[in-house]
Amino acid sequence: MRKNQIPTPSLIINLEVLKRNIEGMASAASDVGVNLRPHIKTHKNIRIAKMQMEAGAVGITCATIGEADVMATGGISDIFIAYPLFGDYQLTRAAELNKKCRLTVAFDSTLAAQRWSEWGARATTELSLAMIINTGGNRDGVLPKDALELATSIEDLPHIKLMGVMTHEGHMHQSTETESMLSAAKLAAKQLVLAAESLRQEGFAITTVSSGSTPACQGRTQVAGITEWRPGTYVFNDLNEMQFVIGEEDVALRVLATVVSNPAPGRFIVDAGSKVLSEGSRPGFGHGFLPCAPEARIVKVNEEHGIIEAKQDALSLGQRIEIIPVHVCTVVNLSNGYYLEKPDGSLEYLAVDARGLVW
Amino acid sequence: MRKNQIPTPSLIINLEVLKRNIEGMASAASDVGVNLRPHIKTHKNIRIAKMQMEAGAVGITCATIGEADVMATGGISDIFIAYPLFGDYQLTRAAELNKKCRLTVAFDSTLAAQRWSEWGARATTELSLAMIINTGGNRDGVLPKDALELATSIEDLPHIKLMGVMTHEGHMHQSTETESMLSAAKLAAKQLVLAAESLRQEGFAITTVSSGSTPACQGRTQVAGITEWRPGTYVFNDLNEMQFVIGEEDVALRVLATVVSNPAPGRFIVDAGSKVLSEGSRPGFGHGFLPCAPEARIVKVNEEHGIIEAKQDALSLGQRIEIIPVHVCTVVNLSNGYYLEKPDGSLEYLAVDARGLVW
Repeated sequence: MRKNQIPTPSLIINLEVLKRNIEGMASAASDVGVNLRPHIKTHKNIRIAKMQMEAGAVGITCATIGEADVMATGGISDIFIAYPLFGDYQLTRAAELNKKCRLTVAFDSTLAAQRWSEWGARATTELSLAMIINTGGNRDGVLPKDALELATSIEDLPHIKLMGVMTHEGHMHQSTETESMLSAAKLAAKQLVLAAESLRQEGFAITTVSSGSTPACQGRTQVAGITEWRPGTYVFNDLNEMQFVIGEEDVALRVLATVVSNPAPGRFIVDAGSKVLSEGSRPGFGHGFLPCAPEARIVKVNEEHGIIEAKQDALSLGQRIEIIPVHVCTVVNLSNGYYLEKPDGSLEYLAVDARGLVW
Repeated sequence: MRKNQIPTPSLIINLEVLKRNIEGMASAASDVGVNLRPHIKTHKNIRIAKMQMEAGAVGITCATIGEADVMATGGISDIFIAYPLFGDYQLTRAAELNKKCRLTVAFDSTLAAQRWSEWGARATTELSLAMIINTGGNRDGVLPKDALELATSIEDLPHIKLMGVMTHEGHMHQSTETESMLSAAKLAAKQLVLAAESLRQEGFAITTVSSGSTPACQGRTQVAGITEWRPGTYVFNDLNEMQFVIGEEDVALRVLATVVSNPAPGRFIVDAGSKVLSEGSRPGFGHGFLPCAPEARIVKVNEEHGIIEAKQDALSLGQRIEIIPVHVCTVVNLSNGYYLEKPDGSLEYLAVDARGLVW
């Protein structure tokens, strides 16, 4: 099977670029002296997770119990769920999962830790917890100054063990150029390290200090005290990441689409709409980037329609084009599978193993 | 199984409201004197499509061959694909599908019609075509004044039969109140009828003149010459539709979510992020509406995080809340299934049969 034989819209992953991205991040982590625990939300695929493990990752990061279960069943033995799980269903399944693999889960409240402790008691198991620290993203997590209070409040609870702190410094994506992005990432990492120190000073054995999103890691942000990186997007990269450290040649995943309509001069409709590209856009770029027509803009997406404005001879009816998506994680999450393109041009279909597993 | 026994995030459909919505639209179409051909993209489920057929629909509308195939296999015998299909894969499968059910496909170019004609010849079948008319949405479709030129250009092609015209007057969603929305919808419908008339005057036997999106149909827009409505969203309704004709009590689908974090006074994190609610928002309302806390706002969605700002006692950690999504079609498209809630409070899980079928 080759690219001209598959239907559109389809996602195509260049295997060589994928491998290079996986190896590059493994080298960067090794050079900086941190463990690498990639977030698999970007690919949701067992085989790619194993490629990451083989390149030196110490384990993986997931967002849901369902994702973690797929990965554990697929053979990954060390999993961190970087999300403040709360529901009974999640707690029950986490306790089961804890028997299948080395599991760590995130939390940010006394109440959640109490529930983990109770479930641990029922499941006769001990769970490792990592505290979520808010280093400026203002999403979940406690402020660094409040970390000690939370740790102290759960100190005596049985069946749980506080072993780490984590942050997601997503707010540095607000930067539009590399230097300010790296400064923001560094500042966040330093705050995380301070939180870890405040806990250690009171006797908590914090072994993992985990930060890192793709551009900060690609920029080799080095902060003393950080022990672990959790980047996700780097396996494929996307238009959002292209504004920072990486280039077009580092983008492993592209959407193959067909121009299905050219109803007016300069207006082209492709069969990749929001059900393929997702709904997000990047200011100045629209809903994706067309390497074959860099000045063209996907100005709008409806569910099955990508609406492109371009010079009237930039594209043509029936043409197949490749699109670099704005945010690749949301694109993969919409798709049942993707094609892996090998150096000889042949394609292999891979399922998105953990697609739609929101529990 | 009852609501308090299922994991979150989950989609819950109130069966009684669903039935009322299906019957209400069937009555409206009957009263106005048009055929009803609902777009199944909203639910993508065979059983709900059959409920629509049993209530009097003449057939269904789909967006892709994959959706149409699922529905034909499920027993729906009359299907319109309201999309300008172009690829070889789509054409081949459409020709096969044409043997399974009464199929009509949309087109907006001579080239596409030529390809349908060639495939029809190979598949020894005749395909019914409907021309897409651009009535102001500026997406696909030819302008009403250009309809005759396109029809004439394909007149002699064998194995295809031009039998209808269609428009999607999506641009009237730009209105923010009912009266201007209905005016815009009426204007679009009139343009469509004019296009049909221009073809009939030259001898084309146009039997179907198909328009209609949910709010225009709920408002019972009546334009002489329109023969068919294709609303989709009305089965479930959503926050976008609530600004027009329908009310909160008409919303059949809600997202059940859990408050998993309350990291700061007035900031709450729910486990429904963009992977559940999709990425869209409605100005002034954010990413969904909380009937239990009408003043709360989902101000941001990350993949697994819905970030809510509310009064500090409006919600509480661990609470389960219901969310009315902004655009229900994109929400269903993300999900593998939903729960049907019956009058006795019991739940039944239904798969989203045609999820992710972008081909």
